Amino acid sequence: MFPGPLGQSLAGRALEKGTWRLDVANIRDYASGRHRSVDDIPFGGGAGMVMRPEVLDAAIRANRGSGPLIYLTPRGRLIDQALVRELAAGDGATLLCGRFEGVDQRVLEAHEAVELSLGDFVLSGGELPALVLLDAIVRLLPGVVGNQETLAEESFEWGLLEYPHYTRPAEWQGRSVPEVLLSGHHEKIRAWRKSQAEDITRLRRPDLWDRYKAAKDSKDGMR
Amino acid sequence: MFPGPLGQSLAGRALEKGTWRLDVANIRDYASGRHRSVDDIPFGGGAGMVMRPEVLDAAIRANRGSGPLIYLTPRGRLIDQALVRELAAGDGATLLCGRFEGVDQRVLEAHEAVELSLGDFVLSGGELPALVLLDAIVRLLPGVVGNQETLAEESFEWGLLEYPHYTRPAEWQGRSVPEVLLSGHHEKIRAWRKSQAEDITRLRRPDLWDRYKAAKDSKDGMR
Repeated sequence: MFPGPLGQSLAGRALEKGTWRLDVANIRDYASGRHRSVDDIPFGGGAGMVMRPEVLDAAIRANRGSGPLIYLTPRGRLIDQALVRELAAGDGATLLCGRFEGVDQRVLEAHEAVELSLGDFVLSGGELPALVLLDAIVRLLPGVVGNQETLAEESFEWGLLEYPHYTRPAEWQGRSVPEVLLSGHHEKIRAWRKSQAEDITRLRRPDLWDRYKAAKDSKDGMR
Repeated sequence: MFPGPLGQSLAGRALEKGTWRLDVANIRDYASGRHRSVDDIPFGGGAGMVMRPEVLDAAIRANRGSGPLIYLTPRGRLIDQALVRELAAGDGATLLCGRFEGVDQRVLEAHEAVELSLGDFVLSGGELPALVLLDAIVRLLPGVVGNQETLAEESFEWGLLEYPHYTRPAEWQGRSVPEVLLSGHHEKIRAWRKSQAEDITRLRRPDLWDRYKAAKDSKDGMR
């Protein structure tokens, strides 16, 4: 599973170049007993199995690197670009990927795990969220994305959703590119893009829009 | 990239059994010209490349299945468990995975694409979000997760984050399992789990908590 799909993108090339490093451990290797079982039934009953504390503890102790221990779970803080930037600027992380119903809560407490969530939905394990988080982080590392301007212009760097994109041809199936983009007038293009980004954010994501407006108002107030 | 990590989980086994089907197409196969180029520079300038409308259009026309055309983009509606359930109950979808800065807006309009977002962060392409969405959907298909009870009890099915899990041993490194879970008293265990789920949701996700309370109040009001 690792580096899995990351191996076929910019992150994969950066991994080969040594821009970042990935050490993968299989939790099952830290299970003992005849069956090398990593899970057990939950106390209090209910469906699903729970990953055993002593197995996880052994796996964490043997593999913990620098930076936070991150447990990927829908119970966690939502991952956003600010957090991604913070992790990209840090010196690494250990990602714990659960399977089954969940992991024993005590091991998370004992290791002061930071619980992070990809979103409000349920997956079969933490591996895909870990791959997503790695992709988001690695593309911010210096030298991974060729043009640093690209990073500065994209979604969320202003706190807004991104404006729409157009490329050639200028006319396609009766649909034209907005005229301002053909004008060559940089100031007007900038203003149009910003107003498009504001419109789409207000329409689609009132939550982001409120945060953007609050940040803007407080900045204006300081002038 | 597809099925990629999905091949190694429950979704992979279900794919082999024929519970679901996946047809993968490479957009580059629909590009013409000597260089089979799929992207071009953006109108209006700026960093990054934009995927060309006629290439995407040809790829979509040749591969469109039943159900919605979904474009994975941080500009879209946030994916949540309600949407996942809706898609799992539907009869398929076509997932469009972008690369580079984005895709030409006109092709999304022409095909009435549903724009969906994994979260407020930027990735190097739409493939990982597509894998995540597939994993979330496939595990809800009948027969994929062995125990249907598991699905009913997990995060978001109540609109709350999940309560903590514990398994054996009852005492581990000086940390005990909450006594109620050892009591065998099913009603008390249910009440404890619900109050834990409420506490963690209120603490970590005020947004979910407000929605949960509003839904509960309106239900109480109807009695």
